[in-house]
Amino acid sequence: MSHDAIEVILTKRDGAELSDSQIDWVVDAYTRGVVADEQMSSLAMAILLNGMGRREIARWTAAMIATGERMSFASLTRPTADKHSTGGVGDKITLPLAPLVASCGAAVPQLSGRGLGHTGGTLDKLESIPGWRAALANEEMLAQLDQVGAVICAAGDGLAPADKKLYALRDVTGTVESIPLIASSIMSKKIAEGTGALVLDVKVGAGAFMKSLDDARELARTMVDLGTDAGVTTVALLTDMSTPLGLTAGNALEVAESLDVLAGGGPADVVELTLALAREMLAAAGLDGVDPADRLADGSAMDTWRRMIAAQGGDPSAPLPVAREQHVVTATTGGVLTRLDAMAVGLAAWRLGAGRERKEDPVQAGAGVTWHARPGDTVVSGQPLFTLATDTPERFPRALEALESGYEIADGQAYAATPLILDRVSSAEQ
Amino acid sequence: MSHDAIEVILTKRDGAELSDSQIDWVVDAYTRGVVADEQMSSLAMAILLNGMGRREIARWTAAMIATGERMSFASLTRPTADKHSTGGVGDKITLPLAPLVASCGAAVPQLSGRGLGHTGGTLDKLESIPGWRAALANEEMLAQLDQVGAVICAAGDGLAPADKKLYALRDVTGTVESIPLIASSIMSKKIAEGTGALVLDVKVGAGAFMKSLDDARELARTMVDLGTDAGVTTVALLTDMSTPLGLTAGNALEVAESLDVLAGGGPADVVELTLALAREMLAAAGLDGVDPADRLADGSAMDTWRRMIAAQGGDPSAPLPVAREQHVVTATTGGVLTRLDAMAVGLAAWRLGAGRERKEDPVQAGAGVTWHARPGDTVVSGQPLFTLATDTPERFPRALEALESGYEIADGQAYAATPLILDRVSSAEQ
Repeated sequence: MSHDAIEVILTKRDGAELSDSQIDWVVDAYTRGVVADEQMSSLAMAILLNGMGRREIARWTAAMIATGERMSFASLTRPTADKHSTGGVGDKITLPLAPLVASCGAAVPQLSGRGLGHTGGTLDKLESIPGWRAALANEEMLAQLDQVGAVICAAGDGLAPADKKLYALRDVTGTVESIPLIASSIMSKKIAEGTGALVLDVKVGAGAFMKSLDDARELARTMVDLGTDAGVTTVALLTDMSTPLGLTAGNALEVAESLDVLAGGGPADVVELTLALAREMLAAAGLDGVDPADRLADGSAMDTWRRMIAAQGGDPSAPLPVAREQHVVTATTGGVLTRLDAMAVGLAAWRLGAGRERKEDPVQAGAGVTWHARPGDTVVSGQPLFTLATDTPERFPRALEALESGYEIADGQAYAATPLILDRVSSAEQ
Repeated sequence: MSHDAIEVILTKRDGAELSDSQIDWVVDAYTRGVVADEQMSSLAMAILLNGMGRREIARWTAAMIATGERMSFASLTRPTADKHSTGGVGDKITLPLAPLVASCGAAVPQLSGRGLGHTGGTLDKLESIPGWRAALANEEMLAQLDQVGAVICAAGDGLAPADKKLYALRDVTGTVESIPLIASSIMSKKIAEGTGALVLDVKVGAGAFMKSLDDARELARTMVDLGTDAGVTTVALLTDMSTPLGLTAGNALEVAESLDVLAGGGPADVVELTLALAREMLAAAGLDGVDPADRLADGSAMDTWRRMIAAQGGDPSAPLPVAREQHVVTATTGGVLTRLDAMAVGLAAWRLGAGRERKEDPVQAGAGVTWHARPGDTVVSGQPLFTLATDTPERFPRALEALESGYEIADGQAYAATPLILDRVSSAEQ
C-alpha cells in the first residue's frame, strides 16, 4: 500500500495508532531518502509526545531490521550471549564481562558503539590500547568468536541502516528520550545481529537517560517483550546510575580498572555488576553450571581478554596512554561523602576530552576523572577527592565547574546506601 | 545570550515556556541556516502539541518580523486598511473588496499569496486576467496605492523571511494546524507590511483549517491580540466555511463572479460578506461615514477595479479564459439541496487543475467547479447541479469522486439555514 509522509505524521500527531503498512512504508522510505529528515524529525517528536503501543513498537523494530542484513551465528558450536547497557558514567562493564563470559563457554558477540555526550563509548575505551582496531569483517568476527569466544567490535553498516540514520537524526532534534524509539533502536540491532541470548543493563538515575525507576522499568519491559517476540531469550537488570560505576571515567582509565577486575581485584561495585550480568548471560545461554567468579580467580578470564585484544591487533602488554596534565581536587572539609553525582562526573570527563561533542570529533585516550572516595566513604579535610586528567589543560576550568555541585561531604547520618541492582525484568513475569 | 537548538527544542518538548531570548535566537538562527530544517520541524511539532502562551506568541511574531524589512505607508494621505482571510473554498472576496474599500477613501495594500491544496490563491485568480502581473517593487506599490487606492500583489521576499521559510517547512512536516504558528505567520507579515487597520476573516467549518467555532475563536483572539499589541487596529469576523462561498471555485470563474458583484449583482452571500468586511475595514480606518453599498451601486467600485487591474498590466476588458472541456452533473432526484460541502467542492476544483500540489506546479486559469444550486434551494430531478471545467479531461473522474459524497438532496425539513457571519472578535472585548 502506498502512503505519504504527511499522512503518517498527521496520524501520529493526532494521537492515533500507525498501521503496520504505514510503519513499513515510512521506515523504508526514510532509509531510501524518500521521506526527508525534516519529516522524520517531526514524526519522531510526535512519537515522543504521543507514544506508540506494543504492536507499533514491534512493527517499527521489524521494519528497521528489514532495511538491512541479518547475521547468523548458527555455524558456532558455543551458545551466543550478548549484553547491552543503556549507557552510564564509568560503565566499563563490557570490557571484563565479554572475556569472562567467553571463558565460561559462551560466545559473546559484542557489537558496540562510540560515545556521544556524557557517557563513554566501549570502542573509544578499547582504542586506547595500542594497535587495537574496532572494525572487523563479518568473517573475521565469526572466526574470532569460534577461536577466542569473545569479540568487541564496531557494528557493521549493514545491520538496521534505518536505525543508524534515525539515531543520528534524533540526536540533533531533541527526540532521543522516547521509550519506543530507544527500545526499537537497541533491539533492531541486537535482533539483526542474531544473538541467541541477550541481557540488558538498563540504567536508572541522574547519570542515565532514564531518570526514574518507572521509566526504566517500562523501557526494560518494552525491550524484553521485543526480544522475546523475536525468539531471543532476553532478560533485563535495572541498575543504579545515580552514582558513577567504579572509580574512573575516561577511556584508558577505564581499561586499567577493567584489568584490575580481570586480575581478581577492582572496585566492589564493578565486580558485583560484572558477575551479576555474567550469571544472567550464562543462564540465558543455558550454561548454568559455571560460576564466573571462579574464572576471575583462576586467571582464565584474563587469558581470554589477552587473546581477544591480540586477535584485533592490540598489544595487551603495552602500557596504556596517560594524559599530559593532572589536577587534583582535595576535600575542604571532613565527613562522609554522601553524594557523588554520575551526571556531574560524566560531564567533567567529557569536558576534559574523554568524550566528543560531534560524531567526527576525536577523543583523548588519557583524559578523564578518577575519584578517590565513593558515597559512604569517610574523608578527611585535605585528602585528594578527584584527579582530573587531560592533554589540554585549558579544559580544567569547565570540568571543575561541572564537578563543583556534583558531590557532598556531610555528617554520616545524611547517607543511606542504595543497592546497585534495583530490579530484574524477564519474559516470565508477564 | 547564546542558545543551541536542542536546548530550545527540549524546553518546549518538556512542556515549559520558551524564554524571549530562546525565541529570538531560534527564529533568527533558523533564518540564517544555523538551526537546521530537521531541528525546526521537531520544534514546530512540539509547539503544535504543547502550545505557546500569549507572551511566547507575541515574541515569536516579533522575532519573525525582525528577520526582515518593515514597510511604511506613512507617506500616503489616505488611511490604510487591509484584510486577511484564513482561506476557504470559493473565497474570492479580496477581488471585489479591495477596489470597493479604495473607492470609499481608504488605501488597501493587499499583499497576497498563491493557492496550495484545496483553497485557491488570490494571485492565481488575478493571473487569469490577460497581462496582469503580481510582482511589484515597493515603490510601484506605493505609487499605485497613492493613485488608485488599491493594490493586490505578491508579498515581497523582504517581509518576515523567517515566516516564508518556516511556512514552507510546516507545509511538508504536518505542522500547519497550530494556532500559535498560524497566528504568528499571518500577523508577522501584516504587522511588517505596516497597515494601520486590519480585518481578519477567520473561516470555520469543513472547508477551513479551523473545523470548530472554538478553535476559530481562539485563532481570532490570538491574532487580534497580536495586532492590537503591535499598534494595528485589528478586528476579526468568524464566518462560515462549511458551504463554499458564491457559485464558483476556480481562478477565472471567481474573477467573473467578482465582476458580477462589482457590477451590483452577484451571489447574495458574496455580496453580504464583501459589504460586512468593507464596513469593518472602513470603521477600523476611521472612515465610518461612507456606505460601501452605494459604491457598488454607483459603479465607482468597478471603476477602481479597472484602474487597479490596468495599473498592473492587466486588460480589464479582455475576455477571461475558459476551460476546453466541461462536464455537467445533473440531479438524479428532486428535493431541497440540504448540504454542499466546501471541502468536497474545493477538492474537486483542485483536482480539475485550479490548484497545485507542489509550489512549482502551474495552475489552469479556466479549471474549476460551478454549482447551480446553494443549500436551501429546491432542485428538480434532471436539472444541472454542477459544471466541472478543465483543460485536461482525464482529471474528471477523480474530481467527480471528490464531489460524490459532498452534497445531499432531501426533504426540505432536513435543512436548517445557518448564518454566514458567526461572530466578531475585537480588542474591546477582552
